[in-house]
Amino acid sequence: MERLKAFSDGVIAIILTIMVLELRAPEEAEPAALQPLLPIALSYLISFFSVGVYWLNHRRHLQLAIHGSHAVQWWNLLLLFWLSLFPFFTDWMNENHYEPWPVALFGVINLITGLFNSILVHALVSANGPDSPIAHALTRERPRAMATVAVYAAGIGVSFVEPMLGFACYVLAVCLWAIPLTEAAGE
Amino acid sequence: MERLKAFSDGVIAIILTIMVLELRAPEEAEPAALQPLLPIALSYLISFFSVGVYWLNHRRHLQLAIHGSHAVQWWNLLLLFWLSLFPFFTDWMNENHYEPWPVALFGVINLITGLFNSILVHALVSANGPDSPIAHALTRERPRAMATVAVYAAGIGVSFVEPMLGFACYVLAVCLWAIPLTEAAGE
Amino acid sequence: MERLKAFSDGVIAIILTIMVLELRAPEEAEPAALQPLLPIALSYLISFFSVGVYWLNHRRHLQLAIHGSHAVQWWNLLLLFWLSLFPFFTDWMNENHYEPWPVALFGVINLITGLFNSILVHALVSANGPDSPIAHALTRERPRAMATVAVYAAGIGVSFVEPMLGFACYVLAVCLWAIPLTEAAGE
Amino acid sequence: MERLKAFSDGVIAIILTIMVLELRAPEEAEPAALQPLLPIALSYLISFFSVGVYWLNHRRHLQLAIHGSHAVQWWNLLLLFWLSLFPFFTDWMNENHYEPWPVALFGVINLITGLFNSILVHALVSANGPDSPIAHALTRERPRAMATVAVYAAGIGVSFVEPMLGFACYVLAVCLWAIPLTEAAGE
Repeated sequence: MERLKAFSDGVIAIILTIMVLELRAPEEAEPAALQPLLPIALSYLISFFSVGVYWLNHRRHLQLAIHGSHAVQWWNLLLLFWLSLFPFFTDWMNENHYEPWPVALFGVINLITGLFNSILVHALVSANGPDSPIAHALTRERPRAMATVAVYAAGIGVSFVEPMLGFACYVLAVCLWAIPLTEAAGE
Repeated sequence: MERLKAFSDGVIAIILTIMVLELRAPEEAEPAALQPLLPIALSYLISFFSVGVYWLNHRRHLQLAIHGSHAVQWWNLLLLFWLSLFPFFTDWMNENHYEPWPVALFGVINLITGLFNSILVHALVSANGPDSPIAHALTRERPRAMATVAVYAAGIGVSFVEPMLGFACYVLAVCLWAIPLTEAAGE
Repeated sequence: MERLKAFSDGVIAIILTIMVLELRAPEEAEPAALQPLLPIALSYLISFFSVGVYWLNHRRHLQLAIHGSHAVQWWNLLLLFWLSLFPFFTDWMNENHYEPWPVALFGVINLITGLFNSILVHALVSANGPDSPIAHALTRERPRAMATVAVYAAGIGVSFVEPMLGFACYVLAVCLWAIPLTEAAGE
Repeated sequence: MERLKAFSDGVIAIILTIMVLELRAPEEAEPAALQPLLPIALSYLISFFSVGVYWLNHRRHLQLAIHGSHAVQWWNLLLLFWLSLFPFFTDWMNENHYEPWPVALFGVINLITGLFNSILVHALVSANGPDSPIAHALTRERPRAMATVAVYAAGIGVSFVEPMLGFACYVLAVCLWAIPLTEAAGE
């Protein structure tokens, strides 16, 4: 499992970092020239931490799993594939200054990635048995995972009414994962 | 061997991820604007998983090998070199909307990379002896490796008749490696 | 903590390396054609080593810490976020040939990153206890950290008078960290 | 020393891989369209393996060294800095179709990087003592290192007469390192 971790770290580190390439330095040397970049910086911020939360969860799940499997390897590759689309969808929001569709699809890509993340965790559970630490972690995290799905679904819906409200939902979803879980001792 | 693994993980992670940079966000904010990107997304998908299969095999082979050698280091570097050309050939397919030559050459680069992969495995076998786990793995994998070569060769050939059929062969080649091997216990 | 280290290594390695992409090869084949690139090379140099010093400190701090925590993970992610903005601010200095504001803000981003670095170290100290090696390292490093803050603050101030003098302060700040500490035995 | 290795792996992996971004896919779908790219592919090839040889040596040296030091960390950072300039100088050769100055300076950057590599190895020797494996490796490698310096120096000189001959010297320098050393047992 060591290489699955190292490889995933590499892919996620690159995904996080290439998004900053969209922040192009303006030609003017005044602070006012940075103002038009604020929306791009904002979407970079949310994407960075959305992907960051996936990394934090990946780290915790893999730490709790002792055994891997052929299925785990493939679902992990699929999870990385969906994560690799984040720079594209972040960009699309920027290009269009937070129009309804791009903001809604940013939520959709989050939901799809979350779905594949969840399949990966289930593959880990079936490789490690129903009484393994990863199985217990899955049970413990379920309420938060469900809440996250609900927040993204709400974000997608309200994006068509007011995109910035949809965006606020995505910020909320990231913040949900910043709350420490008392049960997650020994992390 | 640890650094050979870590370094290869890094190189392959970057190869996988820079291909997504070709997916440029459209200026329009409608879902219809994403439609022209579908062929690019499709070629990204197949390249991501073609390189991903090389990574999965690299991981398994290196896991089964205890000893390295000067030759292993060099053949590994050569394998990484050929893998690094995937973004270029993927791009070429996109630029030309799946014309015969680019699709055929995508198959050729797959075959060449497969050849170097196979030389690397043989170098691992000679560093570890004819009765080592890696030697047995090589024997066990041979039918699938042969089938893959046949599928790519067929794909190259039919690309000149109907490129999308050639492309379908490459998809099939990736799918071949998604089938779990019952013998590959303890992975 | 292993993956936190590996992931941070990946992110910092990419941040360091993407900055060199701003150095574009000139069309002319004469050495004179390289001269206009000198200011860009200079800012690349200082950014490379500014980020490099953060890496050296990150390495030392994490090496001295045995226990992590939820807070450590998040503060580390935030530190990486601020580090990821270095390529942007380096670029901004280049685009404007060292005008006062971009040079001053390069110092500001250094101070903010330093602040987050310091919060991370405090999170490590509270995860490892007041008598842990990381707690002692923090005490030992405080004079140098304070001097660095003073040098950056001075650099920001003088940038509005003479940007190159501000820049010189940033060079000095990096050099401060090149001095070996006799106490840092066993590194 | 583990993180020094992992971090260097990351930086070198990125340096190797971003150079391939210069190979831009042509718009035409004929094999003839690839022909103008051959010189770029050639310079990519030589740069990939020049940097690759530095990685192979870095791997071997660090494997033989048990102790690090403050100096080792800094010289390593400096080595990575010089390596990070390879994409720029490779590009410059391409932009100018192998004019004398760019080809000569590619040799110069190789010599400078080699010098810093040598300083790093000496720092490793002084951290590990005159009877350490790394000290013996240094003695054993000296003839080849000297030969490499001579080949690069010759390459720089003849570049002003016939750049392709200078280029051939750089190819020879890489090939020198592909020869296995019988003494390097247990690698």
